[in-house]
Amino acid sequence: MAKVLMGPQTWLYPMPALLVGSNVAGRANFMTVAWGGIANGDPPMLSLAIRHSRHTLKGIRQNLAFSVNVPGGDMVRETDYCGLESGARADKVEVCGFKVFYGKLENAPLIEQCPLNLGCRVVQILNLGSHALVIGRIEETHVVESCLTDGKPDVTKMRPFLYATTPEGHYRALGEVIARAFSVGKGLKRGKGASPE
Amino acid sequence: MAKVLMGPQTWLYPMPALLVGSNVAGRANFMTVAWGGIANGDPPMLSLAIRHSRHTLKGIRQNLAFSVNVPGGDMVRETDYCGLESGARADKVEVCGFKVFYGKLENAPLIEQCPLNLGCRVVQILNLGSHALVIGRIEETHVVESCLTDGKPDVTKMRPFLYATTPEGHYRALGEVIARAFSVGKGLKRGKGASPE
Repeated sequence: MAKVLMGPQTWLYPMPALLVGSNVAGRANFMTVAWGGIANGDPPMLSLAIRHSRHTLKGIRQNLAFSVNVPGGDMVRETDYCGLESGARADKVEVCGFKVFYGKLENAPLIEQCPLNLGCRVVQILNLGSHALVIGRIEETHVVESCLTDGKPDVTKMRPFLYATTPEGHYRALGEVIARAFSVGKGLKRGKGASPE
Repeated sequence: MAKVLMGPQTWLYPMPALLVGSNVAGRANFMTVAWGGIANGDPPMLSLAIRHSRHTLKGIRQNLAFSVNVPGGDMVRETDYCGLESGARADKVEVCGFKVFYGKLENAPLIEQCPLNLGCRVVQILNLGSHALVIGRIEETHVVESCLTDGKPDVTKMRPFLYATTPEGHYRALGEVIARAFSVGKGLKRGKGASPE
């Protein structure tokens, strides 16, 4: 398999499509973030890369609190919009019709319509170059009741979507199950390389 | 929509399924990482959360270099295995039949069979609790030629997959395109909230 060298690129697959919120000058604002992931297990933390100039980052720095909201597939338009517009110019909450509520952290605005909301407290903000890497401790997790199965959030009900950058920037649904995790590889572990699943 | 409080959780959707590699005591080793994402744009960086005890982390610390390999859907079994087994006990490269090659970074082993390989140099390692957050600068991107479309990696050819934790831990394919990014939200930006897509 011939490989082509393409230089340093920010290509990783898949990325999430997250609505990150903060209060800026007393108003809730949300931006779209695809560059992020879980950063620690215990205590639970996540990290987000946010361009220094972003309006939402101002609020994160001011309050040392923010939210991560996972939108469902019916919110793709609003999610895209929140990445295109700046809260310095528009009231995105009003434009999108977001219902904002607050949990444990009084300065981390959460979006009612999103099936999953994480309230986060800032642990550290690193300056890595073009972006700030915001590391937050997940203080509380809110899940819409109708998306639970046996007491756990069910991705088939929440219908989160993903962002894939190439060849074109697309939002995609989560696809079919191809294997069970912490399971399908067990055959290899036992040295049963040729055994069926 | 009633929300249920579930405490601090590491739930984020979707997560990638990555094979992270390093040389430990002169031998290439790979582990599975789902907790990671892009950490900076310019220069390109990524971050990975790795449990302190992991064998691969030893090699990352020793060499200050590592690789991130994005497996295709035909490698789900090997990917799962690399998360179940430790390189301290088994030669995962041999068990999985990985063909290892090296790019620009002589101590970052890359997997030939993965359609995308990123060679990374360590920028910083943070101790966040149970995990180390490894921040790496992406020095080179290798893409298998057969997965390019118009000179860019094509996710429909690479067939990367994702990890979704709940209600059960599953690997899933990327699903159908639901919207074009930096596009579908433009209608809202122009104040055309009610316009069709």
